[in-house]
Amino acid sequence: MSRPPLTPLGPGGEFDRLRAVFARLGERVSGVGDDAALVEVDGAPLAFSCDLVIEGTHFRRDWLTPEEIGWRACAAALSDLAAMAAQPLGVLAAVGVPAGSEGAFLEDLMEGVARAAAYAGASVWGGDLVQAPIVTVDVTVVGRADRPVRRRGARAGDRVWVTGALGAPAAAVAAWDAGHQPHPGVRTRFARPVPRIAEAAWLRDHGATAMLDVSDGLVGDAGHLAAASGVAVMIEAERVPVHGGVGGDSRPHVLTSSRSGEDAAGAADAAERRIVLALRGGEEYELLVALPTSFGESDARAFVRAFDLPLTCVGAIAEGTGVSVVRAGKPWDIGGGFSHFSIT
Amino acid sequence: MSRPPLTPLGPGGEFDRLRAVFARLGERVSGVGDDAALVEVDGAPLAFSCDLVIEGTHFRRDWLTPEEIGWRACAAALSDLAAMAAQPLGVLAAVGVPAGSEGAFLEDLMEGVARAAAYAGASVWGGDLVQAPIVTVDVTVVGRADRPVRRRGARAGDRVWVTGALGAPAAAVAAWDAGHQPHPGVRTRFARPVPRIAEAAWLRDHGATAMLDVSDGLVGDAGHLAAASGVAVMIEAERVPVHGGVGGDSRPHVLTSSRSGEDAAGAADAAERRIVLALRGGEEYELLVALPTSFGESDARAFVRAFDLPLTCVGAIAEGTGVSVVRAGKPWDIGGGFSHFSIT
Repeated sequence: MSRPPLTPLGPGGEFDRLRAVFARLGERVSGVGDDAALVEVDGAPLAFSCDLVIEGTHFRRDWLTPEEIGWRACAAALSDLAAMAAQPLGVLAAVGVPAGSEGAFLEDLMEGVARAAAYAGASVWGGDLVQAPIVTVDVTVVGRADRPVRRRGARAGDRVWVTGALGAPAAAVAAWDAGHQPHPGVRTRFARPVPRIAEAAWLRDHGATAMLDVSDGLVGDAGHLAAASGVAVMIEAERVPVHGGVGGDSRPHVLTSSRSGEDAAGAADAAERRIVLALRGGEEYELLVALPTSFGESDARAFVRAFDLPLTCVGAIAEGTGVSVVRAGKPWDIGGGFSHFSIT
Repeated sequence: MSRPPLTPLGPGGEFDRLRAVFARLGERVSGVGDDAALVEVDGAPLAFSCDLVIEGTHFRRDWLTPEEIGWRACAAALSDLAAMAAQPLGVLAAVGVPAGSEGAFLEDLMEGVARAAAYAGASVWGGDLVQAPIVTVDVTVVGRADRPVRRRGARAGDRVWVTGALGAPAAAVAAWDAGHQPHPGVRTRFARPVPRIAEAAWLRDHGATAMLDVSDGLVGDAGHLAAASGVAVMIEAERVPVHGGVGGDSRPHVLTSSRSGEDAAGAADAAERRIVLALRGGEEYELLVALPTSFGESDARAFVRAFDLPLTCVGAIAEGTGVSVVRAGKPWDIGGGFSHFSIT
């Protein structure tokens, strides 16, 4: 087995804790720091990752169907393989459910796990089932990573691109928290995220120098990329693609014919809130990727044709450290990043 | 990837549910039914398993130190690899902890995971950390299974052996439930179970025809072996090795010099309770193994010399189905098996 050195992580409470833990474990840890651990097993370059989701921390049971809980948990784990351009092979799902949920609820949940695995070309290799007071799903994924794209290869001068359109998962949670049903398209982005497996392989084959999936928010994950690559990431806020269903607040967006100054200010506030959701919202499971300048708009159009999915240049890599967000040509401090420890 | 057919499981509520779930998933499931899933990845014969433990279902936080919680979770998962005579390579640990437990508690827990992994010759390949209302640990293990021993190879005429001495984990739980501290040796068997990795390889090399680890109780796991192999398992209760620290009830055992008839009856009851704990107690993580009759007492003595661990013949394989327990030459119905769904 190869034991690559640890990859530096960007800021973030959860990552600080994991970093402290892995630092204490020292040489007993290998391959950790990217989205998935890379380990050579008997000559086969494999990638491993696990993703634990817990009712109340990551979702509420009245937000999702059992099948969606399973799909989402599995898709989130598979997205860690996509982030490295690895090809999924198998998944293991450990599930805890309350007494009385072992029948149809459990079967539907596992059906969701199996569908997400099948979507990504992976088999279900096993599982565990225990009783738990709250729904608990840990999905471990195994993939083949012949030519992995890591977080650490970005170079000054590269440009930074993102797949899809952002902000919807955070908008869905905001709507539920406010007592509303989210816009259906927004809800789907939360309930059935799509691991970008084939997209990641395409981006690797077109020169990606560094990549990860957007799970901690665009700015947060840009921070991980910056830290791992030893570069600075500059994001232009106006370029960030915002999902069309994302309103400026958590209420259903009501259009009026009024054009008063207050409404204009309100519209500006709403526009800003939309961008902030797209910059900070986590659990997108889209890809954030650094590509050399030789990758241009015509290449991006080829991506869109191949996958029917946007690919948008949102910024650039420079020498330095950290992430800066620029809006209307000026630095913009949008505050801290998304943390899984504070979703509820 | 190879897709071996599903192995039949024995009776048991948890397994009935898992079986129903995997049956519904059909061909999307592969390698499942033994203690670990066997999958050939790029020519490498690998074994995968996961084991989810949850506070309140599998342990209480005042029973164990954080390091013991981590050790025990990892050892339980590694025991699934031992059950197939696989060599552990790596572990992934997904951990959920309450807010406020992310510091020393989490680090100590992961230290326990890493120590159990190192004991078995495996590295830590990654993890996940989330907030959860109760301590939640899922450990996924990956091993190399060049010559796996499955549950399905036992033949009529083989004899059935078990490593170690049984009953202590169940006795520890019974003591805690009754408000006592368990006997230290009994507590250690619950808090720091030892995956029998090297022992399993030795037994494979000495002709083991079927093997699994005792996680659902000796009788319950004998039922899995019987179902998988299409044979009957007969266990002689008097032969079952009972851990020396296991008393006949949950109270500290008090010896008296009285020899009245009542005391003798009480002693008989206590002796019976000790045997029942050894027959039914789960989470032993000892090995239950079928060996041909050519494996004799001198071979068993060689095992004991090699590992300083008992290896005891507890019964035999016959044509038929199911498990029968014999005591004083008569069939003995000791009731249902251990279920993880009913530990608390």
